[in-house]
Amino acid sequence: MMPSVEESPAVGRIVDGEHRLPLRVYYEDTDAAGIVYYANYLRFFERGRTEMLACIGIDHAALLPQGLVYVVAEVALRYRTPGRLGDVLTVATRLERIRKAGLAVHQRVMRDGHVLVEGQVAVAFVGPDGRPRRQPDDWIKAFEAIVEGALPRA
Amino acid sequence: MMPSVEESPAVGRIVDGEHRLPLRVYYEDTDAAGIVYYANYLRFFERGRTEMLACIGIDHAALLPQGLVYVVAEVALRYRTPGRLGDVLTVATRLERIRKAGLAVHQRVMRDGHVLVEGQVAVAFVGPDGRPRRQPDDWIKAFEAIVEGALPRA
Amino acid sequence: MMPSVEESPAVGRIVDGEHRLPLRVYYEDTDAAGIVYYANYLRFFERGRTEMLACIGIDHAALLPQGLVYVVAEVALRYRTPGRLGDVLTVATRLERIRKAGLAVHQRVMRDGHVLVEGQVAVAFVGPDGRPRRQPDDWIKAFEAIVEGALPRA
Amino acid sequence: MMPSVEESPAVGRIVDGEHRLPLRVYYEDTDAAGIVYYANYLRFFERGRTEMLACIGIDHAALLPQGLVYVVAEVALRYRTPGRLGDVLTVATRLERIRKAGLAVHQRVMRDGHVLVEGQVAVAFVGPDGRPRRQPDDWIKAFEAIVEGALPRA
Repeated sequence: MMPSVEESPAVGRIVDGEHRLPLRVYYEDTDAAGIVYYANYLRFFERGRTEMLACIGIDHAALLPQGLVYVVAEVALRYRTPGRLGDVLTVATRLERIRKAGLAVHQRVMRDGHVLVEGQVAVAFVGPDGRPRRQPDDWIKAFEAIVEGALPRA
Repeated sequence: MMPSVEESPAVGRIVDGEHRLPLRVYYEDTDAAGIVYYANYLRFFERGRTEMLACIGIDHAALLPQGLVYVVAEVALRYRTPGRLGDVLTVATRLERIRKAGLAVHQRVMRDGHVLVEGQVAVAFVGPDGRPRRQPDDWIKAFEAIVEGALPRA
Repeated sequence: MMPSVEESPAVGRIVDGEHRLPLRVYYEDTDAAGIVYYANYLRFFERGRTEMLACIGIDHAALLPQGLVYVVAEVALRYRTPGRLGDVLTVATRLERIRKAGLAVHQRVMRDGHVLVEGQVAVAFVGPDGRPRRQPDDWIKAFEAIVEGALPRA
Repeated sequence: MMPSVEESPAVGRIVDGEHRLPLRVYYEDTDAAGIVYYANYLRFFERGRTEMLACIGIDHAALLPQGLVYVVAEVALRYRTPGRLGDVLTVATRLERIRKAGLAVHQRVMRDGHVLVEGQVAVAFVGPDGRPRRQPDDWIKAFEAIVEGALPRA
């Protein structure tokens, strides 16, 4: 049986108006060129966005049964330096624009304070019909609190 | 024992100056929102680029032991309509600019002639030190032949 | 615009009582050790099972909205020789046992007639409650036709 | 700039003779059936094995340039209950047999103390020629210390 007290997954924290999530590069993330496969940075980015939401109390998986989901509308990525097996990386997630039905997010993957990959991600909040929906008001307030640095350092 | 004559994987072909590769969406490509996971279009794009190279006789895996590889420098993607389980999609790959040490590529993922996702990918040809290398001259000629429509329809 | 006649994805065919699907190894399939990542053979296996179903007219994705799905109950894999970037592989899928609510499947991934990985997969047909359901009778008949070699060579 | 003190990735710890690693299920891990895709448990297993090694001071990525790697020889998995988006799971990794050139490992993926998936993984330590190599003596001693419960609780 599991003991009642268990270590948690890394959930990151909000520092200087952005969320930072640490992660390690495993074999699954790399390719035969010996570096992190280029698509996998989008997996890392999504982990960062999910944990940023969780940090401010938003459990976006809970709305999935109602068909309310964040979908990605646009992505732009710049690859500067390759990540490698065993690296400890940090995913930094910063809200750039808060809209009624979506968010513009700037994300970086860093190693020892240097940026490996950075990019913009535009996400839209949509309903079961795929059309944009207004994000809940308390979510928007929570997003604004991050941007304004109003959140206490975790 | 395997019979000597086997079906080949889909390798696509060059039509109207671009390469087109058909593929099917499997469970592995989808996520809990019921659609193709956003990072996986970059996997589809890379299959398209690889098969375009193979179509003109370039086996880029063969140079990997020498440390000569194409790496992705920049990506910009626009997601229009979600792909779904079981879809038959086409990845269209068009060379937009041929440089000494790299390529600018426009790619689309389509279903029944409609674009689901489109994007730009900038790839660089690099050596073991990660610095740009001049692509082999015959490769550059083969790229130009695609763009000029000089290649016979496969 | 897309021409009306397009190449299809590789769908494989039934030969000697088993289904064979060809596929190519891309960067996405490999890891930093230079070989196909061990979990990815399960992706290849699932492509094989899906195309075997499609070959006999079963579109299992079509039942997903009703919550009827095949889930994997057990897997046993033996890794003999690593697959590598650029390899053309064949996934062979053979029905070993046909049960009311499931299938026992033997699968191999081969290169030039040599087995790289082989394994057993037990799949169960389940309803929205996750409980076993009887597979449609015409599906069971189609499975039996494969095993008995009653299917014409495609 | 990054502050000098950062949160670490979850690395798990050794409890009751086994290593336990917590992780969260993200969209990337799920499929259109709304559950964790069956191949991805092998990714979770490998994270568990890697962090168990790291916990006892073994950085297996460091030997990759010399061509010394652990490869998986056999896997047997039993899927009991599906994992879902947002789940916090624990990967438990227990050494069952320590051999000169390999390890037999029992692994479980659990949610709230219940086993979702369990399995056996046989790994071999191999050289650049793919042939088995003797694992370093101090590694074998560290493995034995885990099994004997000689390691202090972290």
